[in-house]
Amino acid sequence: MSDETQKSRLSVLSSHLTRLPPASSLMASEKEAALAAAPSDSPTIFDKIINKEIPATVVYEDDKVLAFRDIAPQAPTHILIIPKSKDGLTGLSKAEERHCEILGCLLYTAKLVAKQEGLDDGFRIVINDGPKGCQSVYHIHVHLLGGRQMNWPPG
Amino acid sequence: MSDETQKSRLSVLSSHLTRLPPASSLMASEKEAALAAAPSDSPTIFDKIINKEIPATVVYEDDKVLAFRDIAPQAPTHILIIPKSKDGLTGLSKAEERHCEILGCLLYTAKLVAKQEGLDDGFRIVINDGPKGCQSVYHIHVHLLGGRQMNWPPG
Repeated sequence: MSDETQKSRLSVLSSHLTRLPPASSLMASEKEAALAAAPSDSPTIFDKIINKEIPATVVYEDDKVLAFRDIAPQAPTHILIIPKSKDGLTGLSKAEERHCEILGCLLYTAKLVAKQEGLDDGFRIVINDGPKGCQSVYHIHVHLLGGRQMNWPPG
Repeated sequence: MSDETQKSRLSVLSSHLTRLPPASSLMASEKEAALAAAPSDSPTIFDKIINKEIPATVVYEDDKVLAFRDIAPQAPTHILIIPKSKDGLTGLSKAEERHCEILGCLLYTAKLVAKQEGLDDGFRIVINDGPKGCQSVYHIHVHLLGGRQMNWPPG
């Protein structure tokens, strides 16, 4: 193989490689998305998921709560649990006393889904609030992560 | 300074340095503690904190819930929120429908404490369950972390 051919092949290879974002850039972009997200009470992508306007892999549903797989999973099992009616709960920081019932419901649903997913060795629940908490969608949601050893600190 | 003296001083210095556990070893030991903790319904250190037998920096208390600072903080603000009565809730995986009320209370208290701590730019809520979730005390507890940018993935 000539030097020129080698260089050209390396250049093609390197162009393919640079098209794949490295894991660290995926993490950074998640955080950047969170930092760029403007806290507001406008409809979010979750409304479209609730209304079945865009598809999601739903794993649990009842009259109050919907649970579906995260499209950018951070663990073998990564599920989001949301209230079907946002009712002002853009995030946990907006909770009022009347929201206690739905907050309890969300955690209890997380427990049911963890069991359904066979996460008998354990799991982690995460709720992000605001830019510093890394919240990217302003419709309260509970992350359920499992299927691998979770580490400490939690991000 | 002779080579021998230098070697001897370096050896003393290095012995001091190796006595300080590096950050990574602290993280590992937290995880090891979690992996070594046997899930059980026995009294835990939290019962002694509730009964004021051992001191804790309490930041919120009512008839159902106690919130106090974590002794191994992972963020400038790191608070644990627990039910005063465990009522079988060694972890979230043991929740039954009757626990929905206290679960909602724990999250609502986390919101109140976040506000009290001035975490207006955001915070993260974490609940660990079982060895893979990194749970080290078998009395359900909600971690509230804030005061720094939280990262993704969450541990």
